[in-house]
Amino acid sequence: ITTGQDDLFMTQFTKLHDFEKAQVYAELPSAIREVAWRIMDDETLATVFDNLEIDPEEIVSLLQEMPMQKGADILVAMFADNEADLLQAMPARTVSAYLALMPADEVKEIKQLINYDDETAGSLMATEYLAVQKSEKIKDVLVQVKKQAEEAESIIYVYVVDEAHRLIGVVSLRDLLTHPDDMTIDSITNTRVISVKAENDQKDVAQVVADYNFFSIPVTDDEDHLLGIVTVDDIVDVIDEEAVSDYSGMAAVDVSDTDDTAWHSAIKRIPWLLTLLVLGLASTALVGVFEHTIREAPILAAFITIIAGTAGNAGTQSLALAIRHFGNGQDQSGWKNLVSEFISAVVLAIIGGLVLGLVTLLWQGSNGLAIAVGLSLALSILAASLLAHLVPAALNRLNIDPAIVNGPLVATVCDWASILIYFSIATGMLSQFVGK
Amino acid sequence: ITTGQDDLFMTQFTKLHDFEKAQVYAELPSAIREVAWRIMDDETLATVFDNLEIDPEEIVSLLQEMPMQKGADILVAMFADNEADLLQAMPARTVSAYLALMPADEVKEIKQLINYDDETAGSLMATEYLAVQKSEKIKDVLVQVKKQAEEAESIIYVYVVDEAHRLIGVVSLRDLLTHPDDMTIDSITNTRVISVKAENDQKDVAQVVADYNFFSIPVTDDEDHLLGIVTVDDIVDVIDEEAVSDYSGMAAVDVSDTDDTAWHSAIKRIPWLLTLLVLGLASTALVGVFEHTIREAPILAAFITIIAGTAGNAGTQSLALAIRHFGNGQDQSGWKNLVSEFISAVVLAIIGGLVLGLVTLLWQGSNGLAIAVGLSLALSILAASLLAHLVPAALNRLNIDPAIVNGPLVATVCDWASILIYFSIATGMLSQFVGK
Repeated sequence: ITTGQDDLFMTQFTKLHDFEKAQVYAELPSAIREVAWRIMDDETLATVFDNLEIDPEEIVSLLQEMPMQKGADILVAMFADNEADLLQAMPARTVSAYLALMPADEVKEIKQLINYDDETAGSLMATEYLAVQKSEKIKDVLVQVKKQAEEAESIIYVYVVDEAHRLIGVVSLRDLLTHPDDMTIDSITNTRVISVKAENDQKDVAQVVADYNFFSIPVTDDEDHLLGIVTVDDIVDVIDEEAVSDYSGMAAVDVSDTDDTAWHSAIKRIPWLLTLLVLGLASTALVGVFEHTIREAPILAAFITIIAGTAGNAGTQSLALAIRHFGNGQDQSGWKNLVSEFISAVVLAIIGGLVLGLVTLLWQGSNGLAIAVGLSLALSILAASLLAHLVPAALNRLNIDPAIVNGPLVATVCDWASILIYFSIATGMLSQFVGK
Repeated sequence: ITTGQDDLFMTQFTKLHDFEKAQVYAELPSAIREVAWRIMDDETLATVFDNLEIDPEEIVSLLQEMPMQKGADILVAMFADNEADLLQAMPARTVSAYLALMPADEVKEIKQLINYDDETAGSLMATEYLAVQKSEKIKDVLVQVKKQAEEAESIIYVYVVDEAHRLIGVVSLRDLLTHPDDMTIDSITNTRVISVKAENDQKDVAQVVADYNFFSIPVTDDEDHLLGIVTVDDIVDVIDEEAVSDYSGMAAVDVSDTDDTAWHSAIKRIPWLLTLLVLGLASTALVGVFEHTIREAPILAAFITIIAGTAGNAGTQSLALAIRHFGNGQDQSGWKNLVSEFISAVVLAIIGGLVLGLVTLLWQGSNGLAIAVGLSLALSILAASLLAHLVPAALNRLNIDPAIVNGPLVATVCDWASILIYFSIATGMLSQFVGK
């Protein structure tokens, strides 16, 4: 943008979708971006900042390219949930500086939003919604809808509140449009309104919105006072984010950013790989303890990988089912789940043990070895399945998110258990197959 | 529901949200459900069937509890995308029987929908949308909005088409409400409308809707003729479904249904576990080939698990990154990715090899063994990382979804590679550490 082309730039820029404006803005060279923010009004810039889909820290640094007062004005013009996200990504001192430049009522409102825990309904909610009294006429509400249409994040629903701002019902814009203008709101109000509490976990909020196919859901405090709304576009992000985090856990690597350089990608993988390597050393030491057994029957070494590996696979499956189960908040029937897991582990153990035992018998022709290997596999599958179920169950009971246990970690711990089981049995049965 | 209580049941039932109606309906004892569908009109039943969130096969069996003609009427009253899903879940003969009972124009429309491939925009789209000509007045469009509000799945956007029904723009309900009634539509039409093609993959559609924060997106054919819309509630389901399938792949178990009985849960896990067990036998045979080496140096057995396990972990990480990468359709820069993966694998290999080599040296005090073990780990990590990157890359190039490769499968193949590498090196260097 050279001077004189400002108008041309703004004409082109205005035609873009909000998401594209944000993308273009973030990718401008910083000198040109400076020209850009100087010619844009606060509202347009707020739209740009509302639609940036990059790390909050990076958005903050874009904001800090401008004078403090302009930054504060843009924050005020943004949707409250996005504004709160940015303030939460700033150092405390910067937050105070920006808040000092905002109007007092805005400061009061935003301070409440900042206080909600991350990953709760409160942290996702926007405070731009439309609430009316039940005695109002449809035509008056429609006037308000039109007036607030520019500002509110969603005008698909109008919420009905009592004098104390407690949520008592909801009216869809559809119903507003299709009923006579002079009816009062309470005649078309749906009083069975589904809402969530500000401290509810974002996963649970996402589940409700997904089940009910809502475009937005109201958020209340414990006394049912309407605090804000969570819109479906935020829910889409939540589902995506939770899925990426579960998936990352399964593979012990953060897959949230695929644009990383090779160096960053390696760095990101190293901590877990080294942790697992160190934990894996315990397996090595365990086998070392049984060096004498292996000296007597070297063929035993051939079955280490398959027993430990199969136990690891069974454990990974159990873990995936358990995380999915507890992650969905279905923790009511703890014992029933454990029994189910136990029964299915027994079935798996019997089938796995029989198959490996039979193959070993055909290959090595030794009853003793076949029994030792098959029995070890069966017990290892059993141990791995129960371990991978009980650990997330226990974490869930302690209110810790079971997703912190990742797949490879479980596989490593299953290695320990299966090696111990295998070599204990093999050492005990050694006389059955050595020398044959 | 005993007779006489019909009215009471319907009064209570009507108060429920659509999703709850569907839940209640599906869970009624079948005798009572028969009473229920007899007293409900087709529209209400269509709403129930539109909101059932169970397997299409189960929905079909609920539909078949009714006479064919009633079933056909309900199908016609349902949203077209849901109707198409149900027809696709029926045997061909049943489909013909239902189609024979529907009006001809409905049959023509639905036949087109059934033809779209699963997991494409076409299979997700609803045909209930509002399209107007650009010359129409806002007030006339608002009349149409009110009239169609009951039927159309989403009236947040009105689409503007030319005489040939080609999509030329979009108007938000917000803009309709906030502009003077006597303006023509073209003065408030946004002509930079983002649309998708009917054959586009549902993942790509979800990405666009998530990025742009749309409530719905229009679907067109290759000549831009408007065919239907995909709404955000379907996108929420797509994101959830794709995430569950990626996650299931990582753990080699289908986690989509957490309400399974123990028996079903075991059955579901058995095929993969047995496949992996059989593939794992190759590792056993490989180690068996090197039985002589182990006889000479039994301590070698102690490092099998850690080398194979660490290679498997590195492979799982690479696979997760690759699936995520190719799954997002970012296949433009194949070579660049391979180079990145190679560089990060080298870094990981050097660090892992040094750590394990050093630990071995301190533990066993043998230079030869330390070098053999460290070098084997480094080469195994390198091989595993490249393997787990190249296989999904190749599948992607062949237009096969790379998510068919699962974590444990990669770990098993990495076992083969690392055992081969380890015992080849150890056998070659045997003279360096045997006898010490």
